[in-house]
Amino acid sequence: MLAAAKYPEPAELAASVAAQQRPAIARALNLLDDRRPEARRRAASLLAQLPQQRLYRQGHLIGITGPPGAGKSSLTAALISIWRQRGLRVGVLAVDPSSPISGGALLGDRLRMLSGQMDNEVFVRSLACRGEFGGLSAEVWPMSLVLLAAYDIVLVETVGVGQREIDVSRLTDTTVFVAQPASGDSIQFLKAGIMEVPHVLVVNKVDLGLAARKTLAELRATLKPAREQDDWQVPALAASATRNSGVGELADAVNGHRDWLLRQDRLEPRRRRFQAEWVMKRLSDRYGSFGVDRLGGAERLRQRLAKTAGSPYEQFDSLQAEFMAHWHE
Amino acid sequence: MLAAAKYPEPAELAASVAAQQRPAIARALNLLDDRRPEARRRAASLLAQLPQQRLYRQGHLIGITGPPGAGKSSLTAALISIWRQRGLRVGVLAVDPSSPISGGALLGDRLRMLSGQMDNEVFVRSLACRGEFGGLSAEVWPMSLVLLAAYDIVLVETVGVGQREIDVSRLTDTTVFVAQPASGDSIQFLKAGIMEVPHVLVVNKVDLGLAARKTLAELRATLKPAREQDDWQVPALAASATRNSGVGELADAVNGHRDWLLRQDRLEPRRRRFQAEWVMKRLSDRYGSFGVDRLGGAERLRQRLAKTAGSPYEQFDSLQAEFMAHWHE
Repeated sequence: MLAAAKYPEPAELAASVAAQQRPAIARALNLLDDRRPEARRRAASLLAQLPQQRLYRQGHLIGITGPPGAGKSSLTAALISIWRQRGLRVGVLAVDPSSPISGGALLGDRLRMLSGQMDNEVFVRSLACRGEFGGLSAEVWPMSLVLLAAYDIVLVETVGVGQREIDVSRLTDTTVFVAQPASGDSIQFLKAGIMEVPHVLVVNKVDLGLAARKTLAELRATLKPAREQDDWQVPALAASATRNSGVGELADAVNGHRDWLLRQDRLEPRRRRFQAEWVMKRLSDRYGSFGVDRLGGAERLRQRLAKTAGSPYEQFDSLQAEFMAHWHE
Repeated sequence: MLAAAKYPEPAELAASVAAQQRPAIARALNLLDDRRPEARRRAASLLAQLPQQRLYRQGHLIGITGPPGAGKSSLTAALISIWRQRGLRVGVLAVDPSSPISGGALLGDRLRMLSGQMDNEVFVRSLACRGEFGGLSAEVWPMSLVLLAAYDIVLVETVGVGQREIDVSRLTDTTVFVAQPASGDSIQFLKAGIMEVPHVLVVNKVDLGLAARKTLAELRATLKPAREQDDWQVPALAASATRNSGVGELADAVNGHRDWLLRQDRLEPRRRRFQAEWVMKRLSDRYGSFGVDRLGGAERLRQRLAKTAGSPYEQFDSLQAEFMAHWHE
């Protein structure tokens, strides 16, 4: 009832989101962030009524990550400018680690500040990291779907190296890692296999000279050549957000990965797989390993989910009903 | 059956552990590390047959933690020497973060190397950190109980600041934090409330001079005075493991915290509370938040568990049976 007053009917909201109306998009994201049962039901209905084609087969869902100090926000702002020049509409989810140490500066705010040129076609939403979904909050996946319904490019920006980097690479089509110049950490993480190899590596601040160039050379030496002709060859690029150099090449490389995914028919299976992981995570939070076992085990569930259409909430609800059929108070 | 060949009967094993026989203790710890169902049943039976008085009301369970480079292992070795001189028998669980970055050096090995004087009354077991129980593996609690049955002092040594530090402070009577001289990180973590305040703070390597003394002064300035007369006042000490200075004072301070716990009748409730948390964690891993809700909710379950006697496995098994009574295939 509370939700009824606050949110438009799901069908109406879905139509407004698909029509790229900013207030509707903001409201839809609020709805996904609302944990009350009535809001959850509306969110499920909203996702079901968005154009499924756009959610799973179109657009480009990009993760940008890297350690603090790598100049990620300024590079993101420069990338957004390029995309806008190319006529692409951009939605951003800025996931803030909300650490008291970091001083609580929100990525989204910094991004807005950096991109004075931001227009009506760029949407930025900051999201506190509740840390339950590994390093990323559980809302990131459904929110990405809503943004995919309205924007050509959806960007998930996170801070950090290690766990959070891995998480964002498990939710996006393409992961861009912005390396800190003159820091060996990322390279060590890559070598040790702690960090999954991103799809595009970029060293920012190359205007700073030697240290950045050395980091770039080390990154290139770390990357293995693609084993087969059809494999994706990870590029390691140099850029300078402040001088606006190398950013076009970065945008091309990122787009190149999307083209490769589409050529290989991997875009939709990839998104379906991520969604399956999202559902699995919620299932095991709610019903534990017992629930997962009783529903056929993790492996079979993953396969089933990857083949099932429907929103993440619909998939979860249907498995929940299956589990509850065996429960007697 | 496999387990039958490998492990003695639980009653026999329990008697040998209580009689402080090293091979039996080693075997008991192996049994707790064995995840096969038959081994699990034997482990439950073993814990139930150990002297419960020693497990929950006697001995001293101490956590030592701190960042790498703080000289934790050499300080631990020096502490063990002091305890041995005082006639106390010491069991050590060295929890290794098993990170490929750290080079895989096991704390236990280093400890053995450092303590050439180690005799038959000191037992060291290295434990890879599987990372499922927060930063600490699920076996740490039951293993601590087995060691409490045989030793006067049980030491859990972990590396790290932040999550792992918090975890060890949730499993032990007394937490000692070894601060890295000349690093402000720990102080920042303390101030920001990211790190729970340990019961004893020590800056090692004071022989290195100014930096260590400065760190000590900063730590002291960070610590708040105890609010009430009965509160525990956290001491911040200086020590040098290499010169063997300040180690006796450190041992006294650690022992002082145990005396305070006993005076306040807090030792047993504290261990029972930690065990309740251990059971809660296993319950929610296995049956999810659904299981916890159906068993009465987290708050009521915690209260119930804190008041129930029995080993962690017995407590878990009994709640499991309660849950399963509602399940129909």
